[in-house]
Amino acid sequence: MATTRGRPRRIAAASSGQGTAVDITNAAAQLFCTIGYGSTSTHRIAEAAGIRQASIYHYFAGKHEILLELLLGTVQPSLLVAQRLLDSTEPAPARLWALCVSDVRLLSSGPVNLGSLYLLPELADPRLAEFHSRRQHLRAAYAVLVADCPGVPADPEGRAADLVLALVESVILRRREEPVVDVRDLAPRIADAALRTLALDQATVESARSRGTGLIDPS
Amino acid sequence: MATTRGRPRRIAAASSGQGTAVDITNAAAQLFCTIGYGSTSTHRIAEAAGIRQASIYHYFAGKHEILLELLLGTVQPSLLVAQRLLDSTEPAPARLWALCVSDVRLLSSGPVNLGSLYLLPELADPRLAEFHSRRQHLRAAYAVLVADCPGVPADPEGRAADLVLALVESVILRRREEPVVDVRDLAPRIADAALRTLALDQATVESARSRGTGLIDPS
Repeated sequence: MATTRGRPRRIAAASSGQGTAVDITNAAAQLFCTIGYGSTSTHRIAEAAGIRQASIYHYFAGKHEILLELLLGTVQPSLLVAQRLLDSTEPAPARLWALCVSDVRLLSSGPVNLGSLYLLPELADPRLAEFHSRRQHLRAAYAVLVADCPGVPADPEGRAADLVLALVESVILRRREEPVVDVRDLAPRIADAALRTLALDQATVESARSRGTGLIDPS
Repeated sequence: MATTRGRPRRIAAASSGQGTAVDITNAAAQLFCTIGYGSTSTHRIAEAAGIRQASIYHYFAGKHEILLELLLGTVQPSLLVAQRLLDSTEPAPARLWALCVSDVRLLSSGPVNLGSLYLLPELADPRLAEFHSRRQHLRAAYAVLVADCPGVPADPEGRAADLVLALVESVILRRREEPVVDVRDLAPRIADAALRTLALDQATVESARSRGTGLIDPS
């Protein structure tokens, strides 16, 4: 459990009760998404997390490692969902539909729009390679499910899957304009539209929605 | 024609030959998209544009006004295309297809990914209201064309059009991973997929592509 040291916390929501590392990433997420990554110093993160600046370095090598942690959190849960769906014997359209809905929900979750970090110039930093690698794994999972859908033409470069993922990730730009997205309405609509980009017929889309709903983790 | 004053230009590509205001926006675009908006000072923009810092204020009220100029450039050309297409008597799917292609091309154009500025925290700045207003006009044009497509259910909130626009704007995230996008291949594929999200049948999509190609400004 994190203890408050040094000066009083200036941002009310700092203590998560989940430990100092989580307090740091929460504070950083808030700052990166409001004043921007470039404008956020580790000093300011520490202040918002209610700790001394030097204490950050007990947990993270630097600001880039906090960013990496936040980025991984936008991918890792969807990778776990994808693995479970890849192992399922349900029809591919239903599994793809469920992955789309889960991923839209993840990208819509949390108090700030972490997906907006995807467009930071700093994403080219080689120290963030693990994020790019995990995201490529997620992309590959989409490609496998797309390829398994009936009637989808062979697509070795995964271009059809890229458009499916593009629709899913469009929720990032949407949140910029509409900070509180009604994800219960939006996620299934995006998943339906994603399946339609593959030229699946209406009956297949409806069946995917019906069976896919049962494949989504209720949490 | 811009003249070089003060210290020598440090970034080679500064002088556009189109005047100092363009030199300033070009330099700012490069900096905003590489080191980030928050980390870019007007001093650094001036240096990259080869002018004195004070000279910037002859052209722009501040950094926010340079950002506004860059943002308007990502929307205004598409608004002109949209207006021309709204006035056309071609079938709606062909016009929508052409708007998607034009818009993808615009967002893919230029040496840096200006669409990535859409996710800046600073976009909430009320001084950027004109950008948001123009983008809403563009969104409305998409909604009119979507509503005119045959068989599309009534959609007073423009939610179907929002998914079409989402696919178009997905090129922004794509450029983050793949800085040189093959737009001649990607733009028609996005436009096809956008039409398919509306559950238009394959014959309608093919006809839209065929007729829509003739509606695109060749420039």
